[in-house]
Amino acid sequence: MASSTSVIPTTVNPDLQKERDAASFNSEEFAAWWAGGEEVLKFNRGVREYMEKDVDLSEMLQLQNKTHEEIIEFSTRGAIEGAKKLRRLQEERNPGGDVYWPNMYDAQVMWGLVPGGNPFGVMYVMLVKALQAQCTPEQYEEFGKRVELFEICGTYAQTELGHGTYLRGLETRADFDRKTDQFVLNTPNISSYKWWPGGLGHSSNHCLVMAQLYIDGDCKGPHMFFIQVRDEDTHEPLPGVHIGDIGKKMGFIGVNNGFLGLKNVRIPRTRMLMRHAQVKADGSYVSSPTNVLTYFAMVRTRCVIAKNNAVMLASAATIATRYSAVRRQSPINPNEREPQIMDHVTQQMKLFPEIATSVAYRKAGDYLWNLYDVTIEDIENGKYERLPELHSLSCALKVTCSMDSASGVEKLRLACGGHGFLTSSNMSSIYVSATAACTYEGENTVLLLQIGRFLMKTWRAALTGAPLPPTVRYLAEVQKNPEFGTWTGSWENMVKAMQYAAANRTQLAFRSLSKRMSRGETEANAANHTGIEFTQAAELHGRAFVFSAFYEAVTGPQSKTRSANFNRVLENLLELYLVKETLNQMGHLLRFINLTDTDLSGLQDRLETVLTKLRPDAVAIVDGFDFSDLQLNSTLGSYDGNAYERIFDAALKNPMNQKAVPKYFHEILRPFMKSNI
Amino acid sequence: MASSTSVIPTTVNPDLQKERDAASFNSEEFAAWWAGGEEVLKFNRGVREYMEKDVDLSEMLQLQNKTHEEIIEFSTRGAIEGAKKLRRLQEERNPGGDVYWPNMYDAQVMWGLVPGGNPFGVMYVMLVKALQAQCTPEQYEEFGKRVELFEICGTYAQTELGHGTYLRGLETRADFDRKTDQFVLNTPNISSYKWWPGGLGHSSNHCLVMAQLYIDGDCKGPHMFFIQVRDEDTHEPLPGVHIGDIGKKMGFIGVNNGFLGLKNVRIPRTRMLMRHAQVKADGSYVSSPTNVLTYFAMVRTRCVIAKNNAVMLASAATIATRYSAVRRQSPINPNEREPQIMDHVTQQMKLFPEIATSVAYRKAGDYLWNLYDVTIEDIENGKYERLPELHSLSCALKVTCSMDSASGVEKLRLACGGHGFLTSSNMSSIYVSATAACTYEGENTVLLLQIGRFLMKTWRAALTGAPLPPTVRYLAEVQKNPEFGTWTGSWENMVKAMQYAAANRTQLAFRSLSKRMSRGETEANAANHTGIEFTQAAELHGRAFVFSAFYEAVTGPQSKTRSANFNRVLENLLELYLVKETLNQMGHLLRFINLTDTDLSGLQDRLETVLTKLRPDAVAIVDGFDFSDLQLNSTLGSYDGNAYERIFDAALKNPMNQKAVPKYFHEILRPFMKSNI
Repeated sequence: MASSTSVIPTTVNPDLQKERDAASFNSEEFAAWWAGGEEVLKFNRGVREYMEKDVDLSEMLQLQNKTHEEIIEFSTRGAIEGAKKLRRLQEERNPGGDVYWPNMYDAQVMWGLVPGGNPFGVMYVMLVKALQAQCTPEQYEEFGKRVELFEICGTYAQTELGHGTYLRGLETRADFDRKTDQFVLNTPNISSYKWWPGGLGHSSNHCLVMAQLYIDGDCKGPHMFFIQVRDEDTHEPLPGVHIGDIGKKMGFIGVNNGFLGLKNVRIPRTRMLMRHAQVKADGSYVSSPTNVLTYFAMVRTRCVIAKNNAVMLASAATIATRYSAVRRQSPINPNEREPQIMDHVTQQMKLFPEIATSVAYRKAGDYLWNLYDVTIEDIENGKYERLPELHSLSCALKVTCSMDSASGVEKLRLACGGHGFLTSSNMSSIYVSATAACTYEGENTVLLLQIGRFLMKTWRAALTGAPLPPTVRYLAEVQKNPEFGTWTGSWENMVKAMQYAAANRTQLAFRSLSKRMSRGETEANAANHTGIEFTQAAELHGRAFVFSAFYEAVTGPQSKTRSANFNRVLENLLELYLVKETLNQMGHLLRFINLTDTDLSGLQDRLETVLTKLRPDAVAIVDGFDFSDLQLNSTLGSYDGNAYERIFDAALKNPMNQKAVPKYFHEILRPFMKSNI
Repeated sequence: MASSTSVIPTTVNPDLQKERDAASFNSEEFAAWWAGGEEVLKFNRGVREYMEKDVDLSEMLQLQNKTHEEIIEFSTRGAIEGAKKLRRLQEERNPGGDVYWPNMYDAQVMWGLVPGGNPFGVMYVMLVKALQAQCTPEQYEEFGKRVELFEICGTYAQTELGHGTYLRGLETRADFDRKTDQFVLNTPNISSYKWWPGGLGHSSNHCLVMAQLYIDGDCKGPHMFFIQVRDEDTHEPLPGVHIGDIGKKMGFIGVNNGFLGLKNVRIPRTRMLMRHAQVKADGSYVSSPTNVLTYFAMVRTRCVIAKNNAVMLASAATIATRYSAVRRQSPINPNEREPQIMDHVTQQMKLFPEIATSVAYRKAGDYLWNLYDVTIEDIENGKYERLPELHSLSCALKVTCSMDSASGVEKLRLACGGHGFLTSSNMSSIYVSATAACTYEGENTVLLLQIGRFLMKTWRAALTGAPLPPTVRYLAEVQKNPEFGTWTGSWENMVKAMQYAAANRTQLAFRSLSKRMSRGETEANAANHTGIEFTQAAELHGRAFVFSAFYEAVTGPQSKTRSANFNRVLENLLELYLVKETLNQMGHLLRFINLTDTDLSGLQDRLETVLTKLRPDAVAIVDGFDFSDLQLNSTLGSYDGNAYERIFDAALKNPMNQKAVPKYFHEILRPFMKSNI
């Protein structure tokens, strides 16, 4: 039965404290670097303290024990409380600005308040942004502003039950009715129901719907329509609107993803977003100029995904590393005390590479964002040459980061043994959030194929001697100078090796493609048949980028601003990242580059050496990620390291333990045991 | 709002029907082969029909939308119904035997009835088996039989909150009290609470507890004690017993895993299981003879895990393959109709290798089981030489199968795009069941290290010229003849190549170990430091075994009993498995074996060719796995292929859609939108 007093000590677990005391560097320096400077760190912590001060961790740890309905309600409450707090901060500290509200509404600082996801996340991340970008000023004034002010609530609906990636395949249609100056919206089949939008289930009264525009039966392609779906006062669905919750998902359990069917729903003509394409009252259609803005938005979104997934990986690494410092298991030498499991080399191999990976991706995301800012002047001057390159790179980063962070989180969960299987560890919840990014905002394989096509185009251009944009220039270099030269194993050489492998994989794919086309296949068919090689080349292109970005971040001029001790830690992380990833990709590398037996044994030695070097600093590094206990929301990973007591406490509080004997005993189990059936 | 009529057509989706009509072989021949013969198939189907006839699929699809408490109750009801049905079958068809009950209580035929897991699974799989093996005849008569007859219910409790793998680290103690002829049981700390046993939460009134036996303060190591924990009539916990549910887990949501604390709980001396070790009334202790039976049991258990996980992978492959036949997405050639997604080569690459992998592991499991049966005569004659070899091999199979099946299921889930994220797809549930096997019954890394130590011992023995048991003889061959010879790419040659890589990895690990020991490290410390290389060698040892077992199963004498068309399909699966796995392990292979550029391009060609060959047969192959819709329990994978309609139907039925406006709208959302806060 539940005990009423807490079993959780108020002191830090001594094994964990010992780790902190023995670190070779100051984890506060790491924290400031990770946050983007001391000022940012201080600011973030201040906001976080304000946001979290009255939130109960032990209630959050019960999240997964609640019913679906309770979770939905709990998440809505948390999201609204968060909004109120941010608005209050906004009013007090930055009146008239947007620093706190709405800008921080989807930031990491909200994580602790809505561990099941924010039901109004899509509203601010996508709907408001889309309205700002696609409304005429009059439209924004009329309804865009109302969403921004949260007077009405809504979401963005694009995918359908039967249609995802391929926009032109959408079935939802908006027919222009000239007589009434209205659009008539319909989802003609089950497969055309809008499906998945976050918050659509029952926390939206409006919705931005992507539909095929028809004028006089003539299809003009997908356009956006702003539609009211529920009454503002009663929240009842409006006539012709079939709306609801799509049911339980692996993750985002607090976000009511929904469906939407429309049957002859009429809206004024002025509810089509008309900043770009337009439909006039007479039915004439003005098409949109080619829109580079979508490229801009996509590059940013994918940088954000990479950054978020890197942070998720860091949170899982924090939990697993702290737990590995307090858990003791299996003596190394017989008759010795069971060691902290972090002393087993195989455990180090599960933890430290993932710490390094999260740092690498975070830094690669920052790097790409900066690169984008650097070239923004070109872009503002109408020079769009670098957009396809940056877009492609952002796709590659999104794909590799989502893939590696998801598998990394899962490795870390498995590193927590059985207790990682408890939902109160939060590892499964982090995993499902991380893996979801493999599918949303461009399914990973679809993106890899796009990148593959970009690489083919670039390779072909390079063959004609055309100049290449900087981040793919290595392809031309390999064409000019096909020999790799000597493997030295220096960091620079490893970066070069990964680029060399990417270039050679690109070349192989290009040859296969050309061979198929010369046999008479269409380019599209040939591309499909070369799909596997496309994805391989694309993935290596992404990895080569992360290699060079992380190398640059650690060894570049910024290193002069850091203490020697801290630089040593970052260098260890870089060393580990490059070595383990080089070993991971050895199948590709050995195909193109000669490494001797000694080279390969050397890499194995370096791997083992750097694990040993990182061992004393592991806890301090994850402390430097600076998560609050509420953000980690984990019985295994709290700052005080009292893992067993927290697991125990969370178990006692779960609803199944609130009565001694379950109802089913008398109804089902006892009669059966007493019977002879 | 919920619609009352079903939207699910009664016909098979035409795209799926077309696949079935065009297959090159008879899927019934596959089904019979997979089941182990036509008779077995017929028998299995008969039992399944009986078990499933009154079970409602659409209610099962709502499982994840229920509350934790409802799921527990629902699962208990399903488990008891299943027991009743099996007992009835037993009485009618096999009176006095055990074919149906209890033998089929944990078989695949129960899956459809308890999709959240069987709360009495551990009771029959572990508790009854342990009682049979460890009780004296008198003890079995007194209480073992009562468990077997389900007059009482119980579970097997070994792991503790702070202790798992390392048995000697367990803290629970049983002190012998000579005066009263009793044992006094205690769990002295939070970390010594029993934690995890399935069914312990609230569906056990007895429990077999592993505890350190103390006589006069002298520790005799872990022994088993049969303890009553709840009143048989009221189900109230007995005095000194603190028992409850450990809360929500990633999977096994219907199994009430529990905790158990004991405070001065007294049991008669005769409740220690005494077939082997004994404590007499005077406190004298008779220790157990070395027990090879535990080896036997472990080999079998790990074969069962491999087989179950192979079947889980097959179920996920069935769902994803059928869905890939009915889902259409992204035209290959512009302006063509969107194709079945299975026509994208990258999609084939996600599906078909996993089909092949499930078949490979299933056959490797069968092979090992047979090998074990073949050597059982030796074993019965007291020749135990082969037990460590077989044990080690069964560990290797358990590790590689659990690892590959889990990652395979996840790949297949991702291959279903967004809808794979819906719990009604069942993919997440299959995943969590599959990945759990990486941790239970010997955590994978712990097992790999054990296998590594076995390989070191074997390598050392081979160096002295000692004869090796058959399945590791390849190590000695590589010692004798260190050259691989020519890569021909034949199946036989590929099997040899994987063995060669395993042997060479073993050699490298052995050298590292020896070097460390020659530097003065203890063998235990050196083994820890060589841990990463141990695990690499051990994994390859497992893969080499699966290669040879699958090769044997497809090309061996049994092939003469199969039709030519069916053999062609199996050969395609073997070809795909060997080629993709050879490519996956290329980093290891290229280190030891010379493959030319032409060899490597040849493998890529073979990969693409065999995918094309398997394309027309994919649906018929997964049909041959012969799952019922209830066993798949998936909106995406039903036999009729009406995926969208089933997703839609399941969504409409979820509890959140039973009222139009959620309570929280009036309580939280509306007031906020109307306010200016």
